[in-house]
Amino acid sequence: MKFLIVGGDAAGMSAASRAKRNDTSMDITVLEKTNDVSFSACGIPYNIAVPEKPIEDLVVRNASVFREKQGINLLTNHGVERLDPAKKEVYGRTGEGAEFMFSYDKLLIATGGRPIAPDFSGSDLPGVFSLKILDNGRKMKAWLNDRPVKKVVIIGTGYIGLEMCESLRARGIEVDMVKPGKALVPWAAPELSDVVQNEVESHGVRLHMGHGVQKIETAGHGLSVICDGLTLPADMVVVAIGIRPNSEFAAEAGLAVNVKNAISVDRHLRTSNPDIYAAGDCADAYHLVTGQKTWIPLALVANRAGWAVADNVCGIPTEMDGVAGTAVFKVFDLEVARTGLTVAEAEKAGFDPVSEIIKSRSRAHAHPGSTPILVHMIGDRKTGRLLGAQMVGREGAAHRINAAAVALHNQMTVERFSQTDLAYAPPFGPVWDPLLTAANQLLKKLGRG
Amino acid sequence: MKFLIVGGDAAGMSAASRAKRNDTSMDITVLEKTNDVSFSACGIPYNIAVPEKPIEDLVVRNASVFREKQGINLLTNHGVERLDPAKKEVYGRTGEGAEFMFSYDKLLIATGGRPIAPDFSGSDLPGVFSLKILDNGRKMKAWLNDRPVKKVVIIGTGYIGLEMCESLRARGIEVDMVKPGKALVPWAAPELSDVVQNEVESHGVRLHMGHGVQKIETAGHGLSVICDGLTLPADMVVVAIGIRPNSEFAAEAGLAVNVKNAISVDRHLRTSNPDIYAAGDCADAYHLVTGQKTWIPLALVANRAGWAVADNVCGIPTEMDGVAGTAVFKVFDLEVARTGLTVAEAEKAGFDPVSEIIKSRSRAHAHPGSTPILVHMIGDRKTGRLLGAQMVGREGAAHRINAAAVALHNQMTVERFSQTDLAYAPPFGPVWDPLLTAANQLLKKLGRG
Repeated sequence: MKFLIVGGDAAGMSAASRAKRNDTSMDITVLEKTNDVSFSACGIPYNIAVPEKPIEDLVVRNASVFREKQGINLLTNHGVERLDPAKKEVYGRTGEGAEFMFSYDKLLIATGGRPIAPDFSGSDLPGVFSLKILDNGRKMKAWLNDRPVKKVVIIGTGYIGLEMCESLRARGIEVDMVKPGKALVPWAAPELSDVVQNEVESHGVRLHMGHGVQKIETAGHGLSVICDGLTLPADMVVVAIGIRPNSEFAAEAGLAVNVKNAISVDRHLRTSNPDIYAAGDCADAYHLVTGQKTWIPLALVANRAGWAVADNVCGIPTEMDGVAGTAVFKVFDLEVARTGLTVAEAEKAGFDPVSEIIKSRSRAHAHPGSTPILVHMIGDRKTGRLLGAQMVGREGAAHRINAAAVALHNQMTVERFSQTDLAYAPPFGPVWDPLLTAANQLLKKLGRG
Repeated sequence: MKFLIVGGDAAGMSAASRAKRNDTSMDITVLEKTNDVSFSACGIPYNIAVPEKPIEDLVVRNASVFREKQGINLLTNHGVERLDPAKKEVYGRTGEGAEFMFSYDKLLIATGGRPIAPDFSGSDLPGVFSLKILDNGRKMKAWLNDRPVKKVVIIGTGYIGLEMCESLRARGIEVDMVKPGKALVPWAAPELSDVVQNEVESHGVRLHMGHGVQKIETAGHGLSVICDGLTLPADMVVVAIGIRPNSEFAAEAGLAVNVKNAISVDRHLRTSNPDIYAAGDCADAYHLVTGQKTWIPLALVANRAGWAVADNVCGIPTEMDGVAGTAVFKVFDLEVARTGLTVAEAEKAGFDPVSEIIKSRSRAHAHPGSTPILVHMIGDRKTGRLLGAQMVGREGAAHRINAAAVALHNQMTVERFSQTDLAYAPPFGPVWDPLLTAANQLLKKLGRG
């Protein structure tokens, strides 16, 4: 059995390793376009914060381990360009321009995503960076380490933008952030987004919401970001306006694509061609709460999907549970976490959402060091089901969200969730965990409290 | 409707407040033996750590608020001694010796627990304290504040003993801990208990496991704890060998008692008499995992049970979901957490437990400040069900355990739990959360991975 994998990051290498563990005799080839495999993309902002730390620290497992210890035919610098599902062959070119062809019995497309190309000009100028693959981080860090960078403009305020602003402030660099929309964290309720905004501003970051970007230009020795009603000088610019799936060659080969052009897969991670699987940031997924297709590019989902593909390829039929969209990020001293649907997403999915925002504390009554925790919890009026939760706090938000995520996996009602036996001790929260207080308050609005 | 409540702490005051909210016209009387209501018993060790902090900081809501704002007839200093279920009357005596009688339509017994009386002599000597009600803390703190206490012996190493040892070390006091058993944390696997032991010893606490206590004596200006093969001098002794339910007057009135002599209640918190409820540390509960009766005295369960009683009394039929035995404590810089069953408890309940201990990290690969997290996870061989989990770590154990607790509420299998979409960002854990790694490893042992 020839198992060919296109893409050597989270989903691809997870699948390769697990398939080898399942069946050591399997002939596994991985084609990776870059020279880097199995690295922690999410760690790039934290690495960049520390000038002397090598970017290679982010490599989780070296290519040689996959090749020599695991017996995986791992070929880096191999960019796939075309797929022929009828012949079961893929075609491409190495970095040096040499053409190649590989055939397969089963194929996994794990090509990930790439930063969205902006609709303004100048994003290709030297000193303008986006962030996704390790080489983006490598180049950005070299720029920062080799030049006297004093001012950076970050375009976009998603979690990568916010993590980068913390990273750059840690290096003593002035940061301006700009975006067309008015809300810093648009998926969060204003009460929660405002807490994040205060935190970011209190660390000296200048926020410019509501300003579209027209273009980036060179200006003297640096750059200039020309926005609607605003011009921001910069020694470096980070464009972090989101990512999109690398699905073009799959679509050109006739595979179905779906939400946001991600490759459409069933619960076994099979594409519209039964011998081709897709996993990770290039593929869609079922949302746990809506049962509908969604596209949420996150590392754990890519790893889980890679495993599931390997099991299916090895004849162990495996369905993947849906995704809840659980995510967390840190920005300065704040933890921001979410799982499930926002009110807007719930409405779009046909629910009748009822939501409540509560303010609780990170530690018990009278315990020193307690800080506020905000919880926004959403339930469905008709069924009483828990639909989602978002949290912001200085401690205890990141891991707390997981309790709500597990509840979503089990389609718990807000009422049943409010009865869960969560841990209590004074250093870690109030007797009624903030999630339980939110559930109890939401129950009242749902007419069940 | 006359609703009479015996006991004015977590369960009793929760029930009183909620019943008033449900029905403002209800005639509610609370009889509390001590002068303190609605205080945070769990906060006592943390309060004692700080000499200048008033013990009254632990009062969550003042008696006058219940009386004047909520219209609850709250009588402190009223110790109930006898109950006549046929006449629907309770009898007792105030602190000053005045006899009283109250009749009821519905009665809630929320008398809590009290420290187990030791089987050695000397526990009544001045300078020997146990810890449960606020007045214990008040007296212990006065002793510490008024005398030059240099050495304390703590008998018992449960979470109250461990929290007290941290509290006393914070005051610069030398601490010896002694217990008959060999394990510091007997419910935890040796690998986890050893981590706790190292932490406690590294803070200068002298542990003496495997020494039964024979007696406490006065010796010179202080005390002497005479143990098997060991004599420990002390300026103060803390006896923390566990608590037991205050159920005697209920049992004498003919109400059924069950596990550990706790008052037996059904899922509506009704005792064997349909007009009498019991809630909190004096009552038993159904365990979520075993479906069997258990007695786990914890604050959240008491609060939840108080609410459920109030709803039932007010004609809103409410069953209480079982308890998972979720608990957490902090000892110095460690978080120790558990939910569900241990291996021994699982065997006793008729399961065929399979367990796995894994070592993971509190932060991502290459992220600074990462520390080890140990997870012990237990599943059932036959059904694959998750039965319990225990964790120890310097960060991220306390709140993580809640994800497993919610899984227990839903009787998830280890396999389904391993598929849950938990949060990931480098500052908060590895891509595969330690709980997921534990589940994946346990699955292999269960033959399902």
